[in-house]
Amino acid sequence: MTDLLTTSPSGAERTTVGDDRLFPVDAHTRGLARDLYESVADLPIISPHGHVPAALLRKDHPFEDPTELLLSSDHYVTRLLHANGVSYDDLRPADGRPAGRRAWDLLAAHWHEFAGTASGYWLERTFEQVFGLTEELGSDSAGRLYTAIESRLAEPAFRPRALFDAFRIDVLATTDDPLDDLADHAALRDDASFRGRVLPTFRPDRYLDPESPSFAADVARLHEATGAPMTFAGYRAALEARRAYFIDHGAVSADHGIADLLVVDLGDQAAAFYDRAVGGSLSSGEARAFRGHMLLEMGRMSARDGLVMTIHPGVRRNHSSATFERFGADTGNDIPITTRFTDEIRPLLEEIGLLPDVHLVLFSVDETVYSREIAPLAGFYPSVYIGAPWWFLDAPDAGLRFRSAVTETAGFYRHSGFIDDTRAFLSIPARHDMSRRLDASFLARLVVEGRVRPAAARRIIHDLTDTMPREVFKL
Amino acid sequence: MTDLLTTSPSGAERTTVGDDRLFPVDAHTRGLARDLYESVADLPIISPHGHVPAALLRKDHPFEDPTELLLSSDHYVTRLLHANGVSYDDLRPADGRPAGRRAWDLLAAHWHEFAGTASGYWLERTFEQVFGLTEELGSDSAGRLYTAIESRLAEPAFRPRALFDAFRIDVLATTDDPLDDLADHAALRDDASFRGRVLPTFRPDRYLDPESPSFAADVARLHEATGAPMTFAGYRAALEARRAYFIDHGAVSADHGIADLLVVDLGDQAAAFYDRAVGGSLSSGEARAFRGHMLLEMGRMSARDGLVMTIHPGVRRNHSSATFERFGADTGNDIPITTRFTDEIRPLLEEIGLLPDVHLVLFSVDETVYSREIAPLAGFYPSVYIGAPWWFLDAPDAGLRFRSAVTETAGFYRHSGFIDDTRAFLSIPARHDMSRRLDASFLARLVVEGRVRPAAARRIIHDLTDTMPREVFKL
Amino acid sequence: MTDLLTTSPSGAERTTVGDDRLFPVDAHTRGLARDLYESVADLPIISPHGHVPAALLRKDHPFEDPTELLLSSDHYVTRLLHANGVSYDDLRPADGRPAGRRAWDLLAAHWHEFAGTASGYWLERTFEQVFGLTEELGSDSAGRLYTAIESRLAEPAFRPRALFDAFRIDVLATTDDPLDDLADHAALRDDASFRGRVLPTFRPDRYLDPESPSFAADVARLHEATGAPMTFAGYRAALEARRAYFIDHGAVSADHGIADLLVVDLGDQAAAFYDRAVGGSLSSGEARAFRGHMLLEMGRMSARDGLVMTIHPGVRRNHSSATFERFGADTGNDIPITTRFTDEIRPLLEEIGLLPDVHLVLFSVDETVYSREIAPLAGFYPSVYIGAPWWFLDAPDAGLRFRSAVTETAGFYRHSGFIDDTRAFLSIPARHDMSRRLDASFLARLVVEGRVRPAAARRIIHDLTDTMPREVFKL
Repeated sequence: MTDLLTTSPSGAERTTVGDDRLFPVDAHTRGLARDLYESVADLPIISPHGHVPAALLRKDHPFEDPTELLLSSDHYVTRLLHANGVSYDDLRPADGRPAGRRAWDLLAAHWHEFAGTASGYWLERTFEQVFGLTEELGSDSAGRLYTAIESRLAEPAFRPRALFDAFRIDVLATTDDPLDDLADHAALRDDASFRGRVLPTFRPDRYLDPESPSFAADVARLHEATGAPMTFAGYRAALEARRAYFIDHGAVSADHGIADLLVVDLGDQAAAFYDRAVGGSLSSGEARAFRGHMLLEMGRMSARDGLVMTIHPGVRRNHSSATFERFGADTGNDIPITTRFTDEIRPLLEEIGLLPDVHLVLFSVDETVYSREIAPLAGFYPSVYIGAPWWFLDAPDAGLRFRSAVTETAGFYRHSGFIDDTRAFLSIPARHDMSRRLDASFLARLVVEGRVRPAAARRIIHDLTDTMPREVFKL
Repeated sequence: MTDLLTTSPSGAERTTVGDDRLFPVDAHTRGLARDLYESVADLPIISPHGHVPAALLRKDHPFEDPTELLLSSDHYVTRLLHANGVSYDDLRPADGRPAGRRAWDLLAAHWHEFAGTASGYWLERTFEQVFGLTEELGSDSAGRLYTAIESRLAEPAFRPRALFDAFRIDVLATTDDPLDDLADHAALRDDASFRGRVLPTFRPDRYLDPESPSFAADVARLHEATGAPMTFAGYRAALEARRAYFIDHGAVSADHGIADLLVVDLGDQAAAFYDRAVGGSLSSGEARAFRGHMLLEMGRMSARDGLVMTIHPGVRRNHSSATFERFGADTGNDIPITTRFTDEIRPLLEEIGLLPDVHLVLFSVDETVYSREIAPLAGFYPSVYIGAPWWFLDAPDAGLRFRSAVTETAGFYRHSGFIDDTRAFLSIPARHDMSRRLDASFLARLVVEGRVRPAAARRIIHDLTDTMPREVFKL
Repeated sequence: MTDLLTTSPSGAERTTVGDDRLFPVDAHTRGLARDLYESVADLPIISPHGHVPAALLRKDHPFEDPTELLLSSDHYVTRLLHANGVSYDDLRPADGRPAGRRAWDLLAAHWHEFAGTASGYWLERTFEQVFGLTEELGSDSAGRLYTAIESRLAEPAFRPRALFDAFRIDVLATTDDPLDDLADHAALRDDASFRGRVLPTFRPDRYLDPESPSFAADVARLHEATGAPMTFAGYRAALEARRAYFIDHGAVSADHGIADLLVVDLGDQAAAFYDRAVGGSLSSGEARAFRGHMLLEMGRMSARDGLVMTIHPGVRRNHSSATFERFGADTGNDIPITTRFTDEIRPLLEEIGLLPDVHLVLFSVDETVYSREIAPLAGFYPSVYIGAPWWFLDAPDAGLRFRSAVTETAGFYRHSGFIDDTRAFLSIPARHDMSRRLDASFLARLVVEGRVRPAAARRIIHDLTDTMPREVFKL
C-alpha cells in the first residue's frame, strides 16, 4: 500500500529529498515553508470546480488500463506528446486493441520532454504518492511501471471510492450539462455507504452561444425538457428551472466559459436577438452581443438563486480544425488569447457587484490581468473573488507569480482557494498538494522578509486551504 | 518619542528582526542589501509628486482623529475593507459622530485581511516608526493602539510641520487645480520658520477633457480667471498663464492623468474642436481626439516653459457608478486598463522627444509596458524617464518586478527616482523606506550575480535616492 | 593572450568571483548551477540566426578601431548613450577623423549608466574574456583600455577567422538580402583553410511589404534578377528561385520581420493585390493584408523547400523620424508593440502546422505571449518552436522570466536553443555564455525544488546547447 493511502503526509516518507519539493531554496525559508505546509498537509481536499464524472464514483468500477487512466484521458499529456511528434493515432485504441502498452512505451520514450512541466510533475507525484513507485519512467522501466500500476488497479483499494477516501476528498464538484438528469449525483447522495459530497455544476455555454453549431437544437431540447414556451421569456424560464433542478441536487455554482469576455445589456432588444439566434440569422457581432447579454442574465439569476458564478474566459477552442475534425474537442489545441475585464465585465458588476451574497470568481489564462485588473476589482467589489491560476498557469512558477501579482493589492482573503479543474482523478492529491506547498513557500518568504507575522502566516494558509473555498463556494 | 523621530534609522532599533525587512532571504545577499540600504537610509526624502494638501502644513493644526488620519482618508485601506464586506457608511461620520472608534474596531477586526498588502505594510510601519507601537492590531489591541495614537497626536512633536522635519522631507510636491491661488504654498515659502520646500504641481485634466461633466463650466472659469478670450487661442493662453503662475510659485512639473492614452495632432482643426467641446457637441471619439491634441499642446508648453511633464495613464475612474454617486470620487473603485505607449505617444515624442531639457516621466499601472515599451523608449529618447511603479504596483514584489523589467534595457539612470504619490502624509517615510530597501535588495542581487560592481552599487543607490529625482524634476 | 583564446572556460580563471556570474545566490543551488554550466561550457557555439556579415570572415581583415568595433557599430550601446544625452554626431566620424578616442571617452564617462544592462554586461565580458582586461572602464582607465585593445587588434590572433576559431563557433548564420549573390558564403565554403560553416539566411521583408518605400523598385529588381514575368505567379516563382539559390549556398532558414503580425489568405484576390501593390495603389489595410498573405506564401514555400521559418514580429521600426532621416535605420529607435499570435498566425498553422518537417520558430519582444500563446502553441503543434528571448529580452533576468513562463507548459524540448541575433561579432561568446549560465541556473533551481532529477538536468542543458539548435535548424 502506498504512502498516500496509508500514512499521513507528515509521516516517515518526509525523510527523502522529495519532502521539500517546491519549497524555496534558501534553507531558513525552506524550514518555515515546511512548517507551514505541514500544518495543512492533512486537511481534507475541497474541489469546488473540476471535470471528474460523477458516474466514476457512482459505478465505482475498477480502473482497467494504466494508459487510459493516466495518459489517453489527459489532454495535457497527449498534447505534449503530439507536439513532440507522436500521432494521436498511436495514443488511441486501434484495430480493436487498446492503446495500452504501445502508447505507454511512447510516453516512456518521450518522458524527458515532460521535465519541468506541470503535467510531468503531477504524473511523477501520482506514480509515487498513489502507487508508491519512485523509479523514473523511461524506456527501460516502462514495462515494470506499467505492470505494477496494472496490478495495483486490480486491488480494491484502488477503486474510485476507495481512492476518494484515501485522497481525503471532502467535496468534489463536477461540471455538467444543464439537461443532465444528475442521476449519478442523486444516487451518490442517497448512498449511505458513500460519505463524500459530489456536487453538480451548471455549465450552460452551449445553450447561450448562437455560434455553437448545435445551438438551435440544444435550445429546442432545453425548451422541450422544461416545457417552457419557445420565446425569450420561456428560454430564461427554462434556464432558471434547470438551475433550480441543479440546486436541488446540491449544485453551488454555475460555470461560464467564453472566449472573448464581454457583458452587454441588450435590454428590450434581447427577445428579438433570441428569435434570430434560434433562427440562425445573427451576424458574428450580434452573436457576441447575445452571448454578452446572456452572461448578464446568468449573473442576474445568480443574484437571485445564489449559485456562485465562475467565469473562465480567454481560450480559443479547437485551434486546429484538422485535429478537431479528426479527433474532436479537448484534444490539446485550445489556445489562450488576451483577456480584459475592467470595461468588459463592468455592466455585470454595475448590476450585481455590490449585492450581498453574490459571489463571482474570475479566472484567467492571461497573466497580465492579475495585477492590472483582477486584483484591483477583487480589492473593491465584495462580490469578486480571484480564481486560482487556471489551465496553463496551474503550475509551480506560475502559481507563485500569481500570488505575487495579486496579494499586494487584494491580500489573501479575496481568493477562491485552490481549484484543480481536472478530469484526471488520480492527479487531484498531487495538484492540491502542489498548491499547499506553493502557498507555504510564498508565505514563508513574506515572513522572512518581515511582511507577514509567523502566526498570521499559519492562519492564512489554513484559511486558504479550508476556510476560503468553503466560504467562497458556499459549501 | 519614536525611533523615527529621535534616532537615525541606522541606530539601535536595527537589532530587531524588522531591521532586515524586505531584504533578500539569502544571508550573504541580505548583508550586502543591508549595507547598501544603510548608506542611504538617512538621506532626506524628495517627494516630487503626491497628494498631501499644502494647507496641512500651512495650518499646522494637530491631527485629531486616528481613524480620520490613518483610515478614512486612505482609499487604499477603505477599499479593501469594502471588498471584505464593510460598508462605507460604517467608515464615515454618522449621526453627527465621527467614525472614530467604530471604524477603527472594524479595521482591527479585518486586520488579517491586510496581510501581504502594501497598505497593511505601510500602516504597520507607520504604527511602529511614527508612533513606536509594535503590538499587532487586532480586536484585543484596538483600543490600546487607538488611545496611544490619539494621545501622541496631541503632542507638539506630532503636528504636521514637526513630522515634516522628523521625516526629513526636503521637497514635497502637491497636486493642484490650475485655478488654485496657491496661497498656502506662498505662505509656506514666505514663512521663515518653515524650512521645507512645498511645491505646487499643475494638474489640468478637468480643463482638457470634454467628457468631464464640468468641462464647460471649468473652462469658463479658466477664461474668466485669466481674462483670456473665449477662443482656442485664448484657451491656450489661459493655460499658459496659469502654468506661469504655478512656476512663479515654485512648480516644477505638470501632471496629466488620462484613461486611454493617445496623442493626436488636430492641427488647424483644433480650434473648431474647441468650440464644439465647449458647446458640448463632440462625439466620444472626437472628445478623445481633443484630449489627445491637448496632451500634445501640454507637451509643447512644457518644451517652452520647462515644466516636467508627468503622464499617468490607464485608469478607469469610478468603475462603480453607485459608489460614485453615493460616496464620490477617490473611493477605491478606479480600475486599471491596458495601456500602450509606442504608437500612442509617438506624435508627442516626434515633436519634443529630442529637444534639450524636456523631461517626460511615464508611469503605468499596466506592468506589461515596462519591458516592452517604457524601457525601450527611455533607452533611446533623452526626454523620457521611467516613472516609479505606480498605484497598485507601488509595493515590494511589484517594485522588484519593475526593476527587473526595465533595468536590463535602460539601466538605472533613466528612472525618475521614487514617487510616493500619496495623500497619506504619515505613510511617506514608510513608502520611501520601502523603495530604498527594494533598490538595495535588487542591487545586492546584481552584485552577487557578478553584474554590478560593489562600488557601482553604492553610487547607484545614492543616485536613485537623491541625484535622479533632483535632476529629473529639476529641483 | 586572453583566457578565452588560450584556456578552457573550465580552467584557472574560474577561481575569481566572476566564475559564478549569473548563478543563483543560494550557495547550494549555485553549486549545482556551476556543475551544470561546466558540463556545457566547452561545447561549440551554434549561432543559427544573427547579423554578422559573411564578408568579415571572407576578407579576414584586422579590426582597426576599438570604437568602431565595440561601440559605433552596436546600436544597443549607442542608443543608451543617446538617451543619456550624447549626440550621435559625437559617436561618428567627423571632419574626416574617426570617432575613435573621442567617442570612447564619452562611453567611459557614461559607463556607470550601463550598469545592470545587457549591453554593459556583454561589453565587460568582452573586455575580460576576449582582451583579458579586467580594469573597469571609466574616465581614468579609458586611455589604457583603448590602447590595450588597439594593440591586441593588431595581433594575428585577433583577426576575424582566428577569433571565429577561438570562440569555438561551429555554425554561424548571417542574414541576407534575397538578391545577394552570396559570393562571400561561397568563397568561405570553398576555402579549405576555413573550417567553420557560415550559412546565409533568406530575409525577404522588403520584397513583401507594399509599404516599404522601395517596394516597387525592389520587386522590379527581383523579377529582373530571376527573369520571372511581372505577374503574381512570376513574383512567387522569383521568390522560390532565390530561396533555391540560398539553399544551394547552405541556407537553412528564412527569416521574417513584420511589425503587426497577421496571416491572411487572400486566395484568388492575391494576384490583383500584387498588381496594385506594385502600382502603389493599396490602402494601408490592403497592404497589411498583402503582407499577411505573403507570410502565408512564405510558409507554404517553407513547407515545400524545407527552409526553417523564423518569425520576428512586434517592433515598430524607426520610431523617431528625425533620427531616421538624419542617421538612417538601426539607430536604436525601434520600439516594441503588443503582439498576438493565437488568432493572427492561425491561418498559417491551419495549412502547415501539422505537416512533417515543417519548423516555425516564433520570437517575441512582448513577454506576455510567452505563457499565454507561444508555449501553448508549441505545446501542441509539432511545427512550432519557441524562439529564444529576443532583442530587449535577451538579458539575464528576462531570460529567466522566459524559461519560467514557457517551461511549465511546453517543457525544454520545444525551444529553438539560444539565438544571439547580433551584429557585434566579439560579443558572441559572452552572449552564448550568458545563455548557458542562465539555463544552468534555471535547471539548478528546479533540481533543488525537486522538479527535475539531476541526471535529467544534465541531459537537458546539453540538449539545449547543442542538440536542439541542430535539430530545430536542421544543421
